[in-house]
Amino acid sequence: MTDVRRTEHQLADGRRIIYYDHREPYVSLTVARVAKDTRDLPEAERSGTMRLDALTGEWVAVAAHRMTRTHLPATHECPLCPTRDPAFPTEVPDDDYDVVVFENRFPSFSSRPGPVPAGGVVDGEPLWPVRPALGRCEVVCFSSDHTASFSGLDVDRSRTVVEAWADRTAALTALDGVEQVFCFENRGEEIGVTLHHPHGQVYAYPFVTPRTETLLAQAERHRRSTGSSLLRDVLDAERKAGTRIVLEGSQWSAYVPAAARWPVEVHLAPHRDVPDLAALDSSERDELAHVYLELLRRLDRYYDGVDRLPYIAGWHQAPVGDRRELGRLHLQVFSVLRAPGKLKYLAGSESGMGAWVNDTTPERIAARLREIAS
Amino acid sequence: MTDVRRTEHQLADGRRIIYYDHREPYVSLTVARVAKDTRDLPEAERSGTMRLDALTGEWVAVAAHRMTRTHLPATHECPLCPTRDPAFPTEVPDDDYDVVVFENRFPSFSSRPGPVPAGGVVDGEPLWPVRPALGRCEVVCFSSDHTASFSGLDVDRSRTVVEAWADRTAALTALDGVEQVFCFENRGEEIGVTLHHPHGQVYAYPFVTPRTETLLAQAERHRRSTGSSLLRDVLDAERKAGTRIVLEGSQWSAYVPAAARWPVEVHLAPHRDVPDLAALDSSERDELAHVYLELLRRLDRYYDGVDRLPYIAGWHQAPVGDRRELGRLHLQVFSVLRAPGKLKYLAGSESGMGAWVNDTTPERIAARLREIAS
Repeated sequence: MTDVRRTEHQLADGRRIIYYDHREPYVSLTVARVAKDTRDLPEAERSGTMRLDALTGEWVAVAAHRMTRTHLPATHECPLCPTRDPAFPTEVPDDDYDVVVFENRFPSFSSRPGPVPAGGVVDGEPLWPVRPALGRCEVVCFSSDHTASFSGLDVDRSRTVVEAWADRTAALTALDGVEQVFCFENRGEEIGVTLHHPHGQVYAYPFVTPRTETLLAQAERHRRSTGSSLLRDVLDAERKAGTRIVLEGSQWSAYVPAAARWPVEVHLAPHRDVPDLAALDSSERDELAHVYLELLRRLDRYYDGVDRLPYIAGWHQAPVGDRRELGRLHLQVFSVLRAPGKLKYLAGSESGMGAWVNDTTPERIAARLREIAS
Repeated sequence: MTDVRRTEHQLADGRRIIYYDHREPYVSLTVARVAKDTRDLPEAERSGTMRLDALTGEWVAVAAHRMTRTHLPATHECPLCPTRDPAFPTEVPDDDYDVVVFENRFPSFSSRPGPVPAGGVVDGEPLWPVRPALGRCEVVCFSSDHTASFSGLDVDRSRTVVEAWADRTAALTALDGVEQVFCFENRGEEIGVTLHHPHGQVYAYPFVTPRTETLLAQAERHRRSTGSSLLRDVLDAERKAGTRIVLEGSQWSAYVPAAARWPVEVHLAPHRDVPDLAALDSSERDELAHVYLELLRRLDRYYDGVDRLPYIAGWHQAPVGDRRELGRLHLQVFSVLRAPGKLKYLAGSESGMGAWVNDTTPERIAARLREIAS
């Protein structure tokens, strides 16, 4: 791997910004990232509170301030581009970057949450607990090129993103009150992306998310009945069956899960048991930089006539505290596009009841993803 | 209430169709619905199978045949209109109807499911159980008028829909293997509606849905710690607090839940403890016909400039068997529209982690829904 140099600064309103550089001159110690954020920004937006949904036991963040967030700005007003003209400062004070991470200006979770009502409940009612939406929401810019996409990055850049993800996972895991760190990318207007500049996000939650709670309960049940790790057994079973394997490296395998619920879905898991991205060794990170690019490139070839598949790519990581040993790192990438121009909507059965209906089979998805290998 | 006459027939491929009439001449016994389905239909589509997702313990239906279902047909080809010209037969053989229900031609669950692999598992692997997608999917047409919407129906028609829902709930509950019955309406292209004709659906699932499993676990925990019913206590608490009450009848109350997760969300619950729609008495059904119309009319006034709010309206009913006593009937109506022309997307945090962020507060939603009362 190439070296990555990490430089941390503050934006005008106190938010943190961290550069991850692998290209010269920045990776050498002789040139530093020193550009200052010259904007006259108001105090950083606070996150809000979160309320416990009595019917599900799940926390729901209430982030009313996010209604006003930036929505599909014109290209020349993109806040994720570097500041190329000092008269038009963006969120990134420098005039170029490789990969840069900064705190979201409209966070769902932050270290400056909104006030919680007296007694810590809504309307004085014990059924409705409220807590501050404490945590962190960060933006990860994959490239200073506004028109790029992750699948079009070179492998060095992909490797630097992996380094940034691992670093953010370690850093946010260490924050007080954080229980889970989620690195993800939403790509495409079809899934509501409000900024086109190639970027992902990191959410550090002050609770274990509902999806992870469900997974941990399953993993616990599996361990009790078999003595072994559910996620490891699923990976081994997929590799043994082979019917849904998409690619195999020496340290990573990708497969369509046997009960895939999205029209396009693929999981990627390391062969070694690791809890999160921060625990990957250098050689695993190197291979990941390659196989992740290959996966994304296949997704962009999945449908004829769709050059950029809309997708959600999310890293499932072990929770920070309790039950950490039941988690195991894996990536889930899926698309809501069920055919060119046709979306899979989450209507009554999915959104109302959580009961998924997939209009295709996992084996067909896997066959297509193998067919379009580079 | 007016009397409702129920007439049951078969379509050409053996699917059931049931008319619910409240208008003359059909409600009298002298005129019968006797039109025959003259189409030369192939054998009814089978449903597929369902696979257990090892990571969540949830069943996912695999319905690959649904890919070919009818998608936004031209008005004159609408399969839900009555057959007005015998040369163009639709799904409804009669030339008019009040409310009609028939089995979905492209069902996710049916009494004719697809074959299950040997051993009842995928690839011979015990981690991946497969079962037939046994159950029932029905379509409920609210009006023979293609351009109507539920909110524009008169109260007699609304009452007949309630009668049809109650009847279908009772009938499908009695089917072998059915564990939960879900009556719902998806309204609007924004949530993927493929047919504009005003209609809802009924799904009879061969499992307790994930959302209901979660609710039952919460209700069980609540009963253990307090001795009382969670859903009853939530209703009582909302009525006592009053801050999110939208309307109160003598037998029904509507409120925005204290941890609403959608940009527009309202729940409607009966004052009496009942497990499902079939258990409502005549007077409760009468009031429901009124208050449901009033709720839907307010939704259509929610945003200036949006005449027909896209929404999902779903009836949460008690499961059929085990733990039935923990369920309690309530309606959940929600919209993905967060502003005119702006959708709330389920992106990484929601779709990947099940962690919801709401961009508004439940109290603001309730205030708006009170402000626009008839």
